[in-house]
Amino acid sequence: MKRTAYRLEDIVRRFGGQLHGDGDVIISQIATLDSAQAHQIAFLANSKYRAQLETTQAGALILGAADADETSIPRIVCANPYAYFAKLSAFLNPQPQAQAGIHASAVIGEGAVIHSGVQIDANVVIGEGAQIGANSIIMAGCNIGARTLIGENALLYPRVVVYHDCVLGNNLIAHSGVVIGADGFGFAMEEGRWLKIPQIGRVVIGNDVEIGANTTIDRGALDDTVIEDDVKLDNQIQIAHNVRIGAHTAIAGCVGIAGSASIGKYCRIGGSAGILGHLQIADYVEVSSFTLVGKSIKERGSYCGIYPFSSTQNWRKNAAQVRHLDELADRVKQLEQQLEILKK
Amino acid sequence: MKRTAYRLEDIVRRFGGQLHGDGDVIISQIATLDSAQAHQIAFLANSKYRAQLETTQAGALILGAADADETSIPRIVCANPYAYFAKLSAFLNPQPQAQAGIHASAVIGEGAVIHSGVQIDANVVIGEGAQIGANSIIMAGCNIGARTLIGENALLYPRVVVYHDCVLGNNLIAHSGVVIGADGFGFAMEEGRWLKIPQIGRVVIGNDVEIGANTTIDRGALDDTVIEDDVKLDNQIQIAHNVRIGAHTAIAGCVGIAGSASIGKYCRIGGSAGILGHLQIADYVEVSSFTLVGKSIKERGSYCGIYPFSSTQNWRKNAAQVRHLDELADRVKQLEQQLEILKK
Amino acid sequence: MKRTAYRLEDIVRRFGGQLHGDGDVIISQIATLDSAQAHQIAFLANSKYRAQLETTQAGALILGAADADETSIPRIVCANPYAYFAKLSAFLNPQPQAQAGIHASAVIGEGAVIHSGVQIDANVVIGEGAQIGANSIIMAGCNIGARTLIGENALLYPRVVVYHDCVLGNNLIAHSGVVIGADGFGFAMEEGRWLKIPQIGRVVIGNDVEIGANTTIDRGALDDTVIEDDVKLDNQIQIAHNVRIGAHTAIAGCVGIAGSASIGKYCRIGGSAGILGHLQIADYVEVSSFTLVGKSIKERGSYCGIYPFSSTQNWRKNAAQVRHLDELADRVKQLEQQLEILKK
Repeated sequence: MKRTAYRLEDIVRRFGGQLHGDGDVIISQIATLDSAQAHQIAFLANSKYRAQLETTQAGALILGAADADETSIPRIVCANPYAYFAKLSAFLNPQPQAQAGIHASAVIGEGAVIHSGVQIDANVVIGEGAQIGANSIIMAGCNIGARTLIGENALLYPRVVVYHDCVLGNNLIAHSGVVIGADGFGFAMEEGRWLKIPQIGRVVIGNDVEIGANTTIDRGALDDTVIEDDVKLDNQIQIAHNVRIGAHTAIAGCVGIAGSASIGKYCRIGGSAGILGHLQIADYVEVSSFTLVGKSIKERGSYCGIYPFSSTQNWRKNAAQVRHLDELADRVKQLEQQLEILKK
Repeated sequence: MKRTAYRLEDIVRRFGGQLHGDGDVIISQIATLDSAQAHQIAFLANSKYRAQLETTQAGALILGAADADETSIPRIVCANPYAYFAKLSAFLNPQPQAQAGIHASAVIGEGAVIHSGVQIDANVVIGEGAQIGANSIIMAGCNIGARTLIGENALLYPRVVVYHDCVLGNNLIAHSGVVIGADGFGFAMEEGRWLKIPQIGRVVIGNDVEIGANTTIDRGALDDTVIEDDVKLDNQIQIAHNVRIGAHTAIAGCVGIAGSASIGKYCRIGGSAGILGHLQIADYVEVSSFTLVGKSIKERGSYCGIYPFSSTQNWRKNAAQVRHLDELADRVKQLEQQLEILKK
Repeated sequence: MKRTAYRLEDIVRRFGGQLHGDGDVIISQIATLDSAQAHQIAFLANSKYRAQLETTQAGALILGAADADETSIPRIVCANPYAYFAKLSAFLNPQPQAQAGIHASAVIGEGAVIHSGVQIDANVVIGEGAQIGANSIIMAGCNIGARTLIGENALLYPRVVVYHDCVLGNNLIAHSGVVIGADGFGFAMEEGRWLKIPQIGRVVIGNDVEIGANTTIDRGALDDTVIEDDVKLDNQIQIAHNVRIGAHTAIAGCVGIAGSASIGKYCRIGGSAGILGHLQIADYVEVSSFTLVGKSIKERGSYCGIYPFSSTQNWRKNAAQVRHLDELADRVKQLEQQLEILKK
């Protein structure tokens, strides 16, 4: 692909920041400090890695004020180098734009409404009465259920499945293998057999949501499963029926969220964490990777439940003691009592 | 969709239970106590939530005997309100029925047998010699391997893959992204390189099984992987080669079951739990979420291995001590010995 | 399927080992000691299961020298019975061979290069400028992104998705539902909203790699995500952006590897383990199932972080004490000090 190139000065004019050094440097791409070459711009988001400034071959840099004088390479000095990098990279590497048209092999259900500028690729199936918002891209092999509504500027990568009667907002990005609206896990036991409980709620997703590859979001049992605006979900996350995830919350890969849990706004959940059903998590809560949240969290803050690993040899000794912790605590209590008697 | 409606009296006539109050109330759908409206029926499965009876706008209710007199809303009193709700909801919200026919874009392999009443949607691929039982629905983009047998009334949502030579029972529900019969993970190391061990067993699945979105069930290495009747599997479960899961067992999302583990009947496994390979789990065992079962369980009962989370500040202090547990136990032992000496 | 059969003597001639007993036995398949019948050969890789030799109905056996005289069944004695079994089974159960041809429903992008002998099944989509190496099999519904290169003899099961601009080596096996090259999870927060960071790196995969069903491997943020030769990945593994996995490493199901982690060669990672971002794992490291690796591992060896499960009753007592470990350690320290005083 031929890349468009920009003068550093023009970049500053467009995105702000202070220009230090030669504004005529030509920039066509972003790269890391380690790998950047003459026509690439790199960034330093953390002064801890400042030493890399000495060896980088980058043509230009994005820096915070604290690092502005640590190099003579042409540079943009700004308040939030990471956000600056994000915006500049999005400019240099724009998302795919819809090429309006419906591939001959696509199957469009009766009464479906395909708005203007929509791109529908090979082997896509759109259910009866579904709607696809303007300028959306539905890539090959996606399957959109009956009466499901998808907003504008959505980008569905190949083989996304959305079941019937769901509502998805504008600017959605859903990666391959995502399944939205499958049945929640609901059964009643009667006379030794399971009875299936029909899952008649929907999945309702706000605007500006991104959903990673092979993530699953189940439809509600009776009421809806709700993902609010600007939520970012990584790969292989499982979201059970009737979960609610507050706006701007970001969840890392492999997290499991059990039924009817409610997560606040601006939360950050680490990879492979779990959240039990029917819990409430406040806004601005951070949960570490691999942590099971087993009760509601009412205060914002950082929470953790990671237990240490070690060499298998050491682990055997320590983990075995966990089985005797209650007994150990009892023994300490008895020692304290006996010592009190002795002291008297 | 236009909904069919029923008089409460007619519901009682069909499904049993005792009618209290006006039998002429018209009911067209199930809802929660919170959201139910005049033509909807709600249920109370747990007396703990009895307070909601006071505010519900439901047109009718399903209750246990203990709660029968707590409201004047027309109601059905029965022994198991949750099972009653399941059956009534299944009646009001029937599963999709097969619309017999094969979509023009489907590819049907030589010698495949499609029984009567089967619905095969767009872009489905059926392998050579495969059989699809009567009245089954194979939704868009499913891929059924050569010689695989699927029973009657199966419902495969879009983009399910079943590899060759598997046997699936009647009334199967498989959600999108399910993969049945992929190779188990088997390799032998020789001279510093892995040799692949062909996985020549099958996956054999009984009747009345439901499998959640993106769950994977590997074929056996030599013998078969077996899922017995009425097993219910949630989303994103991984079942390795040669696992056996006993009838009526229910497994929540994100569970991993390692090779050749054997799980009894009527077990319940919580979300994100793990079961190591070659273990035996008795019938009627409950395993909590996030618990690793590292040895066989011979007695029915409830088992747990969840460790507490806390604020990151508190966690740092406690988790650090886990590394020193063996040493701490030693120190307590020495204290006990020294105290004995002192006491003499 | 009609199976080809071989005399035991001919098997020894082809694969080596010492023949004990009747070389005229006819063998057509491999089986377990338990289920093997007259025309099948079984193997004993671990002398611990030697007792099964007494009851097996196998027509022949593969054994190590230590077990050679424990049976009178015709047998092959060799140094590594498990590897011998792997090779013989691969011979008796060959992988599918490409049937050269492109299905009429496949969509081949402009400038794509399909090398000789390639099999492309129904509904496959190959992007512009992609290349598929000689004798590869691309099964139904796979989607190969623009400019992606796939090596020779690759075997992609149905519904694998590879995004654009990736590089995959020879002899790749990718099972159904695999997603390679989706965007890594990268966002910058600015003024209370997430900005997406374009993921412009690639996924680069070496030769002889196998990837299990529904596993996801994200493309790099700026540099590449790299999987070296002969890596074996089980099902439902999540590999984040910019991870590097060293040659010959094997990773069991449901493992999550966070961004920029680097794993050495010949490592073995147990099921549902997790590895935090930016860590370095040395060569020849074994990590147990369900273990979170929270800091770099510099020495080869075996590492574990599994904590014991127990009956829920016992667990309640012990797990509760974990919350008070720091306090317990303090109390022991005080006891030690007081005892010292008393002893004086």
